[in-house]
Amino acid sequence: MNQVSIPKGTRDFSPETVRKRNYIINIIRTTFQLYGFEPIETPAMENIETLTGKYGDEGDKLMFRILNNGEIFEKSQASSTNKDLINAISEKALRYDLTIPFARYVAMNRSTLSFPFKRYQIQPVWRADRPQKGRFREFYQCDADVVGSNSLLNEVELLNIYTDVFKKLGVEVELRINNRKILAGLADWIGVSERLTDLTISIDKLDKIGLEGVKTELAKNNFSENQIQKIEAFLKIEGTTAEKINQLKSIFTSVEIAQKGIAELEEVLQKFHLSHPTSPISIDTTLARGLNYYTGIIIEVKAKNVQMGSIGGGGRYDDLTGIFGFPNMSGVGISFGLDRIYEVMDELKLFPTEMKNATQVLFINFGAEAENSSYLLLQKLRKQNIAAEIYPSPEKIKKQMEYANKKQIPFVVLIGEEEIKTGKFAVKNMQSGTQQFCTETELLNMAF
Amino acid sequence: MNQVSIPKGTRDFSPETVRKRNYIINIIRTTFQLYGFEPIETPAMENIETLTGKYGDEGDKLMFRILNNGEIFEKSQASSTNKDLINAISEKALRYDLTIPFARYVAMNRSTLSFPFKRYQIQPVWRADRPQKGRFREFYQCDADVVGSNSLLNEVELLNIYTDVFKKLGVEVELRINNRKILAGLADWIGVSERLTDLTISIDKLDKIGLEGVKTELAKNNFSENQIQKIEAFLKIEGTTAEKINQLKSIFTSVEIAQKGIAELEEVLQKFHLSHPTSPISIDTTLARGLNYYTGIIIEVKAKNVQMGSIGGGGRYDDLTGIFGFPNMSGVGISFGLDRIYEVMDELKLFPTEMKNATQVLFINFGAEAENSSYLLLQKLRKQNIAAEIYPSPEKIKKQMEYANKKQIPFVVLIGEEEIKTGKFAVKNMQSGTQQFCTETELLNMAF
Repeated sequence: MNQVSIPKGTRDFSPETVRKRNYIINIIRTTFQLYGFEPIETPAMENIETLTGKYGDEGDKLMFRILNNGEIFEKSQASSTNKDLINAISEKALRYDLTIPFARYVAMNRSTLSFPFKRYQIQPVWRADRPQKGRFREFYQCDADVVGSNSLLNEVELLNIYTDVFKKLGVEVELRINNRKILAGLADWIGVSERLTDLTISIDKLDKIGLEGVKTELAKNNFSENQIQKIEAFLKIEGTTAEKINQLKSIFTSVEIAQKGIAELEEVLQKFHLSHPTSPISIDTTLARGLNYYTGIIIEVKAKNVQMGSIGGGGRYDDLTGIFGFPNMSGVGISFGLDRIYEVMDELKLFPTEMKNATQVLFINFGAEAENSSYLLLQKLRKQNIAAEIYPSPEKIKKQMEYANKKQIPFVVLIGEEEIKTGKFAVKNMQSGTQQFCTETELLNMAF
Repeated sequence: MNQVSIPKGTRDFSPETVRKRNYIINIIRTTFQLYGFEPIETPAMENIETLTGKYGDEGDKLMFRILNNGEIFEKSQASSTNKDLINAISEKALRYDLTIPFARYVAMNRSTLSFPFKRYQIQPVWRADRPQKGRFREFYQCDADVVGSNSLLNEVELLNIYTDVFKKLGVEVELRINNRKILAGLADWIGVSERLTDLTISIDKLDKIGLEGVKTELAKNNFSENQIQKIEAFLKIEGTTAEKINQLKSIFTSVEIAQKGIAELEEVLQKFHLSHPTSPISIDTTLARGLNYYTGIIIEVKAKNVQMGSIGGGGRYDDLTGIFGFPNMSGVGISFGLDRIYEVMDELKLFPTEMKNATQVLFINFGAEAENSSYLLLQKLRKQNIAAEIYPSPEKIKKQMEYANKKQIPFVVLIGEEEIKTGKFAVKNMQSGTQQFCTETELLNMAF
């Protein structure tokens, strides 16, 4: 059995990759905590009733379902369709996102949680999407949500989290915000309130297919010429933030829901600028974000200086937990796209160089007594929190040096019998190739 | 749909539990790193060929298998047995442990890895075991292994890792070691080399069923009276470590493999005591550990002052990666039982008190201008890495105070319009109930 492989769309992560991923995750996690968000974790598998119907037909198809254990043969024979069969032999599926498990958690624990409940969750999710560049069947989501508060201060906090995290990561970004209420107002204004979803789906494609593309699609979907003209006027809104706000206000003078949406945007921007007066943020009236469940502010993050889709996004949704029997809980949340952030940072070379290695010092093993001396000194370094190791057997020095090189260990210590007698030993800097002679005390005082 | 639930044997983790678990995991992880071990991560699902046949028939039954996506109905109809059916409609299963995925990773990446390869891995695994107290269907394993080195220094390093981790966690433990070569020697000595597995399975039960129980089981399994007498003599070996070694040497004078095992134990103990002269470690000749694949030193960790099975274990196994076409790689590894360590620490109250809360300071929200002043000060605290939050809306103070209490936030800051004028505001210590008046500078200099 030489043809070992892993399932398509999944990945092994090498030590360097794990370190880089954890570097990003740690910055996200500590920032969430600074803002008072608390961690929860939910099981990898959920009961099928919890997940089905929450992500549309497509989502139901792309779920990874777990086969029941034990005897399933008879049940399978009693089924007459593919769907019956699947439901007869499978009662669980892998987590498809973190939002539905969060809603399920809140509904189940409503009596003990204190609201507003601010949680973060960093766990993998699984989708049977067709694998392609940058799209995987197993990937991490990093989410923060507040549930049980209508205050726009929550939106401001989430924008601040985005700003702080990307500043700490060294990634230059632009925040874009919009409000679903304005899109709802647009639908009202042109008299198609009941077709808000069709409208937003088309508008959402502006980036990909351009204005003419959107107009063609709208025409195909039976929007009238007059309606399309009005949509075009809306999509062409531009200028500074203040100018955009003015244009929106004048287009929607008599559309109440749009006015409310505009006022929310103004309030959020004003408060955001309080603590981040110079951070780049703009209104993007074309921002729709696919998911239907957003009802208020929507947010998207784009990286500058690199070709890449959004590396984060979120928004407000009313009634998050109603589907689980706990109605009227408004929520607002954001998500970080770990894989895309990783790619951006790799491309722009933003990872600190110490991601390459973990061990700082390798002790060459000369066997017998020398090994013991090295070992004791090694343990003293570890007590000072310096990652260090000894080659486990007295192989040829060349082989041991190669090990240090491959593992990119920056310092190598050579203590043979001669060195034990003199109390001085060589410390080799593997990058510069230089070598210095140290006493034990000098080594323990070196800054690694 | 009010009857929300999660699959049996799985768990949601609350914020406090996640913090406690991460406290343990971080200490394990940083210790692994100090010893030069590097992290890898493997996918939650593996191809079925990678997993089946590696954990015995029982393991194959307890694996969680993933249903193929798309059309499976026809394939299911063409099957005639339960086993055929499962294989026809499922090609992947969830990770059952971390050792086999590690072996698969090493075999797949043999050309780029540098050996000895020291890896650690901390990820969940899934088993369809019958759920019971302390046994779950989803649980974390925390493993460190060295592959590609026969040196016993690796065993010593792993014993040191156990000692260091439990010292940092504040858990008093006893390390027990044995050597499979001695058990193999016992089988040789009584003339049942080919029945080593039967023998070790019975010996492994000594803790549970006592000496008489083991003897009864051996008799049932057709071991002769004379053989059972010899086994009993072996199981009764006791005294100090030196005394045990002497008894073992005299029993096995003419059994070569046992003599080798004894010499290995002596070498490991001598080197372990070099850097940990007073740490409790003992030889336990009855220690067998169920898994068949161990071939050398075996290790087990028991917590003191508490009733609990082993909280860690491991050993050396020859030819880890041979099953994946990469023969003759010897390995040695250990595992930490996260759930049991958690239970021990909870029972002995060993978690630091700061696990209870994350946020240090809550700003009471008085609305309007006061909210803005609080917000700016709040952001200054966060810049100093102090986790802080503001209640998102100007609710009644009582309600906001309740929020602080429930979240166990230790300090509450009250800035109203009056306080903005005077530049002094109240900081309430929620535990003592005392209140002091501070300027902004004083607050920023407080030690939280």
